[in-house]
Amino acid sequence: MKVLVIGATGFIGREAVKELEIDAEIITASRSSSDYEVDIASPDSIKKLFEDVGKVDAVVCAAGGAKFKNVTEMTLEENQVAVDSKLLGQVNLVLLGQHYVNDGGSFTLITGVLMDDPLPKAASAAMANGGVRAFVKTAAIELPRGIRINNVSPTMIVEAKEKYGPLFQGFKPRDGNDVGLAYRKSVFGRQTGQTYEVY
Amino acid sequence: MKVLVIGATGFIGREAVKELEIDAEIITASRSSSDYEVDIASPDSIKKLFEDVGKVDAVVCAAGGAKFKNVTEMTLEENQVAVDSKLLGQVNLVLLGQHYVNDGGSFTLITGVLMDDPLPKAASAAMANGGVRAFVKTAAIELPRGIRINNVSPTMIVEAKEKYGPLFQGFKPRDGNDVGLAYRKSVFGRQTGQTYEVY
Repeated sequence: MKVLVIGATGFIGREAVKELEIDAEIITASRSSSDYEVDIASPDSIKKLFEDVGKVDAVVCAAGGAKFKNVTEMTLEENQVAVDSKLLGQVNLVLLGQHYVNDGGSFTLITGVLMDDPLPKAASAAMANGGVRAFVKTAAIELPRGIRINNVSPTMIVEAKEKYGPLFQGFKPRDGNDVGLAYRKSVFGRQTGQTYEVY
Repeated sequence: MKVLVIGATGFIGREAVKELEIDAEIITASRSSSDYEVDIASPDSIKKLFEDVGKVDAVVCAAGGAKFKNVTEMTLEENQVAVDSKLLGQVNLVLLGQHYVNDGGSFTLITGVLMDDPLPKAASAAMANGGVRAFVKTAAIELPRGIRINNVSPTMIVEAKEKYGPLFQGFKPRDGNDVGLAYRKSVFGRQTGQTYEVY
């Protein structure tokens, strides 16, 4: 099985790669330091990625940015980061990438706990997460050729605690491998339209 | 109490007005045929609306468009309609309008059943709904001066059955007034961060 992992170098992407590479051929993509360069906020960059990589059995995404700022101070431009990256970046992976996924293949997108368990400054990220979750649920009933689509919704992982701990006050960190397993369940399982919460 | 109802002339907006005007002063806004003209897909139009209307106690939204198309055929431009209108249009009502809402006032946005109960061709609308629901949940813990924010998530209403029945196969239509009551609960109640499902 050939799996394209986008955002492969981040905290979550590394866990997905570690778990999936046990028995899949992994192609990595990210903004730098991967097999392929991609910025999911750019539709042209997504198109080029799929043209360069060609057909795959699974597209796994662990990428997507958002500005963290209180809604009382957030500008429209700051909110646009999450719209272009974490929300549309991932939706566009599906709209543009569906023809590059083999029959019976899958998409696994990333959302996050913030859509369910709100934190200050995280409205823009939560918005993107909630949008992706709902998109996945409908796309699942429409994708042809047995192609499935799910999303993994992680909380902070142990491996990222030093960086994100001050933001995620009182959140119990989960082992990164628990998130890797959620990606495995999506890629190797047969379910579709699911949100795999790792909270 | 002074309530600004945006999208006042649509199926849902009319129900909100009918229920709220019993004991509130209503100011209506929509793309035409209301007290004020507004296109929520345009930030400038939103700014002008609030400058013209001034301070209010509640902002009620029943507006927001989306293209209905299968994800296998949807272009990025078609998906952008829901992003600009139903998603960002409503988020921008909050980002731009918060300073025009009196202490203890409220925002009530609109989402919809499609985010929970997927229908073919509705991925873009569902995406916008899910994004708004998650945004509301975080905005609720950040808005100052006792300002609250909720969203009403209606299914098809009896009054719109002739138009939407063919799309909503097997969905039990709810009385329009049930949706009006959900807006009342949000505007006159004290809850915040809620999704009032009228399914």
